[in-house]
Amino acid sequence: MSLYAIIVAGGTGSRMQSEVPKQFIPVGRLPVLMHTLTRFYQAFPSIQIILVLPEKDISTWNTLCKQYTFTVPHLQVPGGETRFHSVKNGLQAITATDGLVAIHDGVRPFVPVATIKHSFDVAREKGCAITVIPLKDSIRKVSVDGTSQTVDRTHFRLVQTPQTFQLPVIRQSFLQAVHTHFTDDASVAEAAGFQLSLIDGSYENIKITTPEDLLWAEAFLKKKA
Amino acid sequence: MSLYAIIVAGGTGSRMQSEVPKQFIPVGRLPVLMHTLTRFYQAFPSIQIILVLPEKDISTWNTLCKQYTFTVPHLQVPGGETRFHSVKNGLQAITATDGLVAIHDGVRPFVPVATIKHSFDVAREKGCAITVIPLKDSIRKVSVDGTSQTVDRTHFRLVQTPQTFQLPVIRQSFLQAVHTHFTDDASVAEAAGFQLSLIDGSYENIKITTPEDLLWAEAFLKKKA
Repeated sequence: MSLYAIIVAGGTGSRMQSEVPKQFIPVGRLPVLMHTLTRFYQAFPSIQIILVLPEKDISTWNTLCKQYTFTVPHLQVPGGETRFHSVKNGLQAITATDGLVAIHDGVRPFVPVATIKHSFDVAREKGCAITVIPLKDSIRKVSVDGTSQTVDRTHFRLVQTPQTFQLPVIRQSFLQAVHTHFTDDASVAEAAGFQLSLIDGSYENIKITTPEDLLWAEAFLKKKA
Repeated sequence: MSLYAIIVAGGTGSRMQSEVPKQFIPVGRLPVLMHTLTRFYQAFPSIQIILVLPEKDISTWNTLCKQYTFTVPHLQVPGGETRFHSVKNGLQAITATDGLVAIHDGVRPFVPVATIKHSFDVAREKGCAITVIPLKDSIRKVSVDGTSQTVDRTHFRLVQTPQTFQLPVIRQSFLQAVHTHFTDDASVAEAAGFQLSLIDGSYENIKITTPEDLLWAEAFLKKKA
């Protein structure tokens, strides 16, 4: 069964207070996105990686690949208006009818190789595998009138990626029209009526969105080195 | 109006895979808890700090204070069976009937001084101030049968500390019997029927609970230095 990974790298540097899109910022001497692609390649050297990048960033990426002699094989696909459209573009680049595909945030460079492998194992058996972690902090639900209520944090999970699917499942899910409550691919599959199976993620698998995250990323790589 | 801070430092090193209780682990050459107390002292040099520590850790703490010549004035109070009991012990050490008290996790050493000040301002006016931040990741609600549903993350906030209260408000709240859903002081006040007002926290104000957090803490301090 063929294995695919769609890496979605559509972010800007806005929350990062940076001119450089965050997926291109170097951590540990390598742009974030190169770490991410390498993890998938390490999990399965035969995996077919589809990198979805905003059109405007493709030439920068190609320059970086030359500059860093980055050789992990991957296909480039231009991103769409929203994350939903970007993933859809990525899926359209896969011609096979059967197989498994992991969809992953480009700015989660530290996804453990074991998590990637496990997500494919579970998706093969159950249709999909959504990576989640427990909440460390208490949460409150806020209402439009400004009031709020304690909710039991053990009833909630933070959603990470990879979110890995059997190709027919995710293809059928993306036939739907886009909806504002589609915040990730799991919510798209859920809206299409598929039952979701959750797997354990890890606190290491952070999404790099703020300057604090970059700081953490540098420290993390130094410790691993 | 007198200002108080109850710093709750009841944690063990279990999730930290450390023999040393996490509040005593040095970051940037100073035990975590000394950073925390210093922030409150910087906010208000006249604040009365009540440090709630497990009985067994008090002598270690005193040794550390000598070793680091730590001079931030504070009162020591032994902790209770749970966080609820620890806070209650801390409150009983305050003899005044009027004033404002911030309750804060000992292992949140990077709470911005501005946040501490703001929490007292809001509590003075509104009765309490609960520090919260938006969620960066999607969340799912899980059910006992293993199914899960997407929920809108914009309706939720992660709860931090300080949680600052007018003394009569928090005193009356802690007259209740302890309940398992009391995960923080805000939930205690809420159960007593008080309306909660939320204030903006910050991503810097992390709770040090895992080895990854310590790593981040070291990097954060290096950057500030």
